Parts: sequence; C-alpha cells; structure tokens
Amino acid sequence: MKLIYQGKTKDVYQLEDGNYMLKFKDDVTGVDGVFDPGANSVGLTIEGAGRSGLKLTKYFFELLNEKGIPTHYINADIENVTMTVKPAEVFGKGLEVICRYRAVGSFFRRYGLYAEEGQPLDAFVEVTIKDDKREDPTISEDALDMLGILSKAEYKVLKELTQKIAGIVKNELAKKQIELYDIKFEFGRAGENKEIVLIDEISGGNMRAYKDGKYIEPLELEKLILQ
Amino acid sequence: MKLIYQGKTKDVYQLEDGNYMLKFKDDVTGVDGVFDPGANSVGLTIEGAGRSGLKLTKYFFELLNEKGIPTHYINADIENVTMTVKPAEVFGKGLEVICRYRAVGSFFRRYGLYAEEGQPLDAFVEVTIKDDKREDPTISEDALDMLGILSKAEYKVLKELTQKIAGIVKNELAKKQIELYDIKFEFGRAGENKEIVLIDEISGGNMRAYKDGKYIEPLELEKLILQ
Repeated sequence: MKLIYQGKTKDVYQLEDGNYMLKFKDDVTGVDGVFDPGANSVGLTIEGAGRSGLKLTKYFFELLNEKGIPTHYINADIENVTMTVKPAEVFGKGLEVICRYRAVGSFFRRYGLYAEEGQPLDAFVEVTIKDDKREDPTISEDALDMLGILSKAEYKVLKELTQKIAGIVKNELAKKQIELYDIKFEFGRAGENKEIVLIDEISGGNMRAYKDGKYIEPLELEKLILQ
Repeated sequence: MKLIYQGKTKDVYQLEDGNYMLKFKDDVTGVDGVFDPGANSVGLTIEGAGRSGLKLTKYFFELLNEKGIPTHYINADIENVTMTVKPAEVFGKGLEVICRYRAVGSFFRRYGLYAEEGQPLDAFVEVTIKDDKREDPTISEDALDMLGILSKAEYKVLKELTQKIAGIVKNELAKKQIELYDIKFEFGRAGENKEIVLIDEISGGNMRAYKDGKYIEPLELEKLILQ
C-alpha cells in the first residue's frame, strides 16, 4: 500500500485492490492548544483521539449502511486505527456540508443581527469550500453549479442526505440525553453511476454536542455514546 | 418634512403626503480616501458626487419604469439633489442584492480556488446582509427564509428582478462600449400587496464598470452614459 495523502487528522493509503485505507491520527484541529471542530489547523495532539474517532465513525457508518444510506465505508480495524473505504472523488477540491440545529459558531458570527445565540434552527444546511487560505467560505447552490463544482440535481441529493444523516446522528445522541447543535459531513461521488456517498468520518471532531447545557469533548462523547 | 435617517451617502426625509425624499450627499464609500463601492465606511467626499449619482439614478429608474419594472421612484430634482420616492419597507434590516458578470471583488476573494480573476459569470446573483459590524456576510435563500427575512417565493422574484434590471443596465452601458462587471441593488416591499420594488439608487457607486479594460470612476461613468 502507498501513502497518497497526509491530512490534518488522518493519512490516506491506496490499497492494491483499488480501495483506500484511512489511518486516523491523534492530531485534532484547534487553535492555541484548544480543540475547535471548525478550526483549520492542527491545534493539539490528544492521545487516543484517533482510535476514539474511529470507534464512533465505525458505529455511525455501520448504522447508516444498515439504514441503506450510501457511504464509502467497508470496514474498520480499531486495533490498528484504520478504516478501509471504497474510492470516491470529492466535489471540486473538497466541500464540507454542515447541518445546524442551533445558531452557534460561524452561523451566529455571521447572522447575529437576525439570530439569538443558540436559537433552534430547522436542520439548516450550508456548504463551505475546503480552502484554508480563504477561511472555508460558504458557497450557494447557484455558485456551486456555476463554478462546475456540483450540479443543481446533486445539490438536492446532498441536502436531503445531509438532513437525513444528521437526523440519525441527532436521534442516537438524544438516546443518551445529548443534544446535537451542529454537524459537518463530507461527501463524494462513488462508482460508475457517480452516486453521492458520505465519506470521511463521523466523530466528536465533526460535531458540537451538548449535555445539560455543557459542551461535550470528542473523547467524552465517544464514551457516552458507546458505553 | 422631517429628517428620519442619516445614511452614509444620503439622508432620508419623510414628507407630509406619506412619501419620502432622499437627499443625495457628496460622501462616497471607500477606505483611506480611495473610492470602493463595496466599502462600509465613508472614505471621502467628492464634490458633485451626489448630483452625479442622482442624475444616473433618475436616468435608470425612469428607464426601468418605462419598461414596467416596479421601483419606488416618483421624481427627481437635480438642482436640489433630491429624489422623491414611495414608501417601502426593507427586508429585515436591509439586504443588498448583487449581480455579477465577472469574477472580481469579494466573489474572487472568496472563490479564487475555483475562479480566475475576471472570468465571465452568468449573471450570478447573491444576497448580502447590511451589517457593517459583521462585514456584510452573504446569506443563502434557505437562511433568508429560515430567519424570516425573505420568503422563498420572494427570493424567486428578487432574483428574477435583479437579473432583469442588471441586464438592462448592462445593455445601456454596452451602448457606450462600457462593460458592467457587477452591480448591487436594494429592494423593498411597497403598497398593500407588498410588491417587491427596486429602491435606493442606481449610480456609479453601485457598480463596477470598465472601458477598454480600465475601471471607470463614478463621476466619469455618469458623463459617459448621459453625454
């Protein structure tokens, strides 16, 4: 197998059978040593963060596959902290799709004139470009289409899948009296039909989850959900 | 008549018949003494800028009214540098609607990963919130609807009107061998039916216009168009 990409929180290897292997790392995004799921740089290393993220990812991706939601997931090896996935091409140079249930983070920073901090949002979906240099700007359906990144038909599927998957995660968290504030996903096109599938991971590093009004750190979230 | 609002580039008076009078000022938006149509602060005062802007606004609004496009315009008094308009309520606390034919300005700053500077855009429409403190963030159709600022049906009308009006301005400029790169408008709801109408102004301060590859300053633009 061949290392083809070193990401902020995981490395990607190409396997001989055409699939890929993701190696989860203990590096997490943040600023000045403080974890921040929305940050663009690796802020700190937390021992066990990679394995913890993989455990949650395995749990959620297997749940999604059971429910017939297309993902790139094949299997996970918790001991070696790796996940095997089907090949998928990202949209453009990579997009993030966010689903919001509460007005916090960058949404509140942008729309504070019209929203109270923390007010409920109705599974609001927005897309951002993965572009550290330009601070991951949001991009509209029209712009995605015009710039050849995502067609209007694909946007519709993407939005529906996002709300469906976020709803499933939200329900899982609710079983443990945890509230999902927002969550971000990555998608790609897989197979000959260019089917839109969920890629990357679903872990504490991708979401804001609160219990009794208190933010839950990623490792703690994994324990609460999988215990 | 009563002064009810002092804006960056014009003052607003309420008239006794229920209409309003806009007094165009010589202050223009910019940064450090350099004119910038996208800036949020008054950067400099240019003698004659108010009258020049009003002349162009009168020209374009009368042209739009002839073509049956709804605006708040009643008449203009060039000598006193005032324009009389019908009452209209803005969306939320005010939106700007931009139509883009070239990838420049904030569009290019945001989407430079996918666009060449100056590449043609297909009358791309985007909406920004008037919020100096938060640097006028863009906002999507879904967010406008969810935050109660603009319904989906209104967004459709707004987008169509924007492309139609921008197309008319673009054609007028083309008659003088001037190319419109982008233009921003404000809209509001007028009358009992809450009809969506163009408000504010259409002048050099609202658009980027180029001739022979060179940017045309607002006062020069007025002369070129009205000569």
